[in-house]
Amino acid sequence: MIGALAAIVGASQVSTDPDVLAGRAVDYTGRYRGTAGALVRPGSADEVAAVLRACRDAGAYVTVQGGRTSLVAGTVPERQDVLLSTERLTAIEAVDTVERRVRVGAGATLAAVQRAAGEAGLLFGVDLAARDSATVGGMASTNAGGLRTVRYGNMGEQVIGLDVALPDGTVLRRHSEVRRDNTGYDLTSLFVGAEGTLGVLTALDLRLHPVPAHRVTAVAGFADLDALISVGRRFRDADGIAALELIDARAAVLTAEHLGIAAPVTGAWMLLIELAGDTDHTESLAAALEDADLAAEPAVGMDAVASQRLWQVRESVGEVLGAYGPPLKFDVSLPLAAIPGFAGAAVDLVAGHAPEAIPVLFGHIGEGNLHLNLVRCALDGDAEHALYSAMMALIAEHGGNVSSEHGVGTRKRDYLSMARTEADIAAMRAVKAALDPSGYLNPAVLFG
Amino acid sequence: MIGALAAIVGASQVSTDPDVLAGRAVDYTGRYRGTAGALVRPGSADEVAAVLRACRDAGAYVTVQGGRTSLVAGTVPERQDVLLSTERLTAIEAVDTVERRVRVGAGATLAAVQRAAGEAGLLFGVDLAARDSATVGGMASTNAGGLRTVRYGNMGEQVIGLDVALPDGTVLRRHSEVRRDNTGYDLTSLFVGAEGTLGVLTALDLRLHPVPAHRVTAVAGFADLDALISVGRRFRDADGIAALELIDARAAVLTAEHLGIAAPVTGAWMLLIELAGDTDHTESLAAALEDADLAAEPAVGMDAVASQRLWQVRESVGEVLGAYGPPLKFDVSLPLAAIPGFAGAAVDLVAGHAPEAIPVLFGHIGEGNLHLNLVRCALDGDAEHALYSAMMALIAEHGGNVSSEHGVGTRKRDYLSMARTEADIAAMRAVKAALDPSGYLNPAVLFG
Repeated sequence: MIGALAAIVGASQVSTDPDVLAGRAVDYTGRYRGTAGALVRPGSADEVAAVLRACRDAGAYVTVQGGRTSLVAGTVPERQDVLLSTERLTAIEAVDTVERRVRVGAGATLAAVQRAAGEAGLLFGVDLAARDSATVGGMASTNAGGLRTVRYGNMGEQVIGLDVALPDGTVLRRHSEVRRDNTGYDLTSLFVGAEGTLGVLTALDLRLHPVPAHRVTAVAGFADLDALISVGRRFRDADGIAALELIDARAAVLTAEHLGIAAPVTGAWMLLIELAGDTDHTESLAAALEDADLAAEPAVGMDAVASQRLWQVRESVGEVLGAYGPPLKFDVSLPLAAIPGFAGAAVDLVAGHAPEAIPVLFGHIGEGNLHLNLVRCALDGDAEHALYSAMMALIAEHGGNVSSEHGVGTRKRDYLSMARTEADIAAMRAVKAALDPSGYLNPAVLFG
Repeated sequence: MIGALAAIVGASQVSTDPDVLAGRAVDYTGRYRGTAGALVRPGSADEVAAVLRACRDAGAYVTVQGGRTSLVAGTVPERQDVLLSTERLTAIEAVDTVERRVRVGAGATLAAVQRAAGEAGLLFGVDLAARDSATVGGMASTNAGGLRTVRYGNMGEQVIGLDVALPDGTVLRRHSEVRRDNTGYDLTSLFVGAEGTLGVLTALDLRLHPVPAHRVTAVAGFADLDALISVGRRFRDADGIAALELIDARAAVLTAEHLGIAAPVTGAWMLLIELAGDTDHTESLAAALEDADLAAEPAVGMDAVASQRLWQVRESVGEVLGAYGPPLKFDVSLPLAAIPGFAGAAVDLVAGHAPEAIPVLFGHIGEGNLHLNLVRCALDGDAEHALYSAMMALIAEHGGNVSSEHGVGTRKRDYLSMARTEADIAAMRAVKAALDPSGYLNPAVLFG
């Protein structure tokens, strides 16, 4: 099979070097490690399709890899898989400034797409901290969210066309020159978020947005989470909302310490609010915060040092926490009203299982999203599994979802039935079987 | 089988009366007629599932009917089908004003949902002229658009949960208490827009929106379509955009005549612009129109008589045109830049095929959508088919899509390959076969 792969992509694009494979068979946090048989780097959609065909015919499993920034070990191979990397599919075509869109290769990084949009005077609607590594193909496959979801939606809302290499070795190309293309099944939404189990995305048509002329940020500190939620609720559908981020004092202090800046802490819980648009929202933002139950005066304005510091902290928190050792990560969505109760119960749960761990909370509160990270959590094996499972049950109890924006990956596949009914999972499996009858593509993720 | 159906839903909810069936086996315009074997009106999702099972086991075909306002003959049965009506599934649950959502039966009319949202101080994001008849189940099945798509998106963007009775007779329930629910395949988007071929929607969780505090409308008349498009392009992503509608003078005159009001005509082409939000956009709207290439002074302001008249005309045009005889309807999307060229070529094409017909144009220009209606078009049979096919080819030539917001139905199934590649159609058919192997559900639509 290695020979067949080399014949498709060229010998220099296939590797069986154990060091290379070991470096690719591990997840971003270093917590989860698998085994791979080969690495192959196709240079086009047709090569991807041919690689898939060759692997299927040889009975090999295939795991797709983009920027390998998955936080649910979504690119960790478990069966000596062939690793199919999209890293050479980085082409970015000319931006269409009239229809506001751009066609990009699945292996282009988020940062490269943001740069191309910016150079054309436009903006790409998704932003997240891993922008220099994360590829748009991987982000689409997990329907990634991020810091701007409250304004522009997830990756799914940006994808208006795609090329996808199917498990049968054909390439499905769905592109449209129009904004609304409503003919037949919405296969675009099906492939987006399928975590690579139904096909390999090779190119995407992405929607772009105008750059707002004005932008204003406020930072508000709260003594308790209920007060923060009640302000967040008011802002999440407000005109011009551009970001609505929660961060707790513990996360802010740990991160600021590591960055060597003063900790921007004005309460136990901080809310970062950003409004943007054709008009200046500074006055309405200040007015809306006047009667809020704050722990201190809010800092309003783009130039406010507190805003800049909190943005810096919020942006860095995920990466910085890793410096304290691989954190145990939970990514959940909850109804806004359930968040304070869940946060309290989660802290108690952690104290019972891992008294040494420091639980920190941050997230995209506009979407009810919470990233709960356990720093310096020494648990592993069965003890880690016990805490993980108990947390999943707690989330379900509070009406939450086990996966918010990171996907299911390999990490959460055992908890799929907490989020989806039997009939639902059966329908998903029927779709999977229809497109990938032998189940060789991304076999470890989602269903496992 | 009739006995089996009666045992499920009660004898009074099954009919084989030829008059009843004839009245239901015809499309909204009266142009297309089919044949049905029975009408059945289940009262719950479980009854819908049981009816599906019974029909499948008896080898009967099933056509699903909601408000029967399809403009592509999407509810016309062709094989003595059992007509499954959702008309009894009208329950509307209490509005959740915190998470801004409501669960409704698929048979609830759009008007009823709009009313329920309004009574809770909120707004439903989709609006269209057939609101008193169209059901939200049918609208979701066709991913309907309408007058507010430019602001809130199509039906697909409103649906955040659903109950769907599958062809195998099980009920898939996917509901989430959170805004972003990203676990597993996006089956919600798959069932939305599937035109009832993959299952019967029985209930929907719908997103609701805050009511804007301010609203302002402008009407601008243009001598040529290029000038209109260049203004439309500027507004379609503007802050607060709430409607962006095109209507030509011919449509406005015919409609105003029928309504007995003065025709609000200030140019060959009129653009209706509405902005809404927390702040008043009147000034920015007037300013943005100052340097536009208009045929006359624009009328700006909610109270402007011209605005009110044009809204009335735009709202009524679809229905009023029917008074001149069943129009031949085309519903297309085009890249904005291609619209003037297409409009000219379409008029020429019609003149060649049906010189007696009056072509009128209106549509949701923010989405590149055009409704081309041929009034008093006397063609039928092969001559109608020849014009229809030539128009479809013309649309494809201009980079347009054969179906914008009405779906494919039975009317456009022969043109699916103009919009979708072979690999794409094969993947759609694979999904259909996975969920409905015998192909008994809505057999006439989409693939035919």
